[in-house]
Amino acid sequence: MIFDCHVDVQLRPGIADPQGSTIERSLPTLGFDGIDGVRVGKSIRFQISADDEAGARSELDDLCARFLTNPVIEDATITLSPAAN
Amino acid sequence: MIFDCHVDVQLRPGIADPQGSTIERSLPTLGFDGIDGVRVGKSIRFQISADDEAGARSELDDLCARFLTNPVIEDATITLSPAAN
Repeated sequence: MIFDCHVDVQLRPGIADPQGSTIERSLPTLGFDGIDGVRVGKSIRFQISADDEAGARSELDDLCARFLTNPVIEDATITLSPAAN
Repeated sequence: MIFDCHVDVQLRPGIADPQGSTIERSLPTLGFDGIDGVRVGKSIRFQISADDEAGARSELDDLCARFLTNPVIEDATITLSPAAN
């Protein structure tokens, strides 16, 4: 069975985000006001083949912890859905 | 009114994604099989202050087109919701 997977990786609250701060500082110069608290993360999409959803989710949890994120400073949100085709 | 905003930026289909390809090539070495089509994008979160949702959305569309994405090679998905507090 094939699943579409989306892993959203965000820096944990309190961890400095220089990329987000740089975007936020530039906004008023470009004429955008009222934007606050910019945080930049990664959005990783792929397809995973597994016997069932539990198997896919267990492989994904392991993948996130070991490879896609740094669990010390990042949190991952995993979204799994059966592939359309 | 304050809105929570999430902008998910992905490379358009057909645009080469060297970061995704590198992740995909490394996976079998690490013992992860059955993963295919890895694409890496950006996930940007912030709060925007606007009179109403239409105003926030119009500022966001402009912000995405001019600053947060490169519309030639990237697509943005905007999610807007009233802030919790």
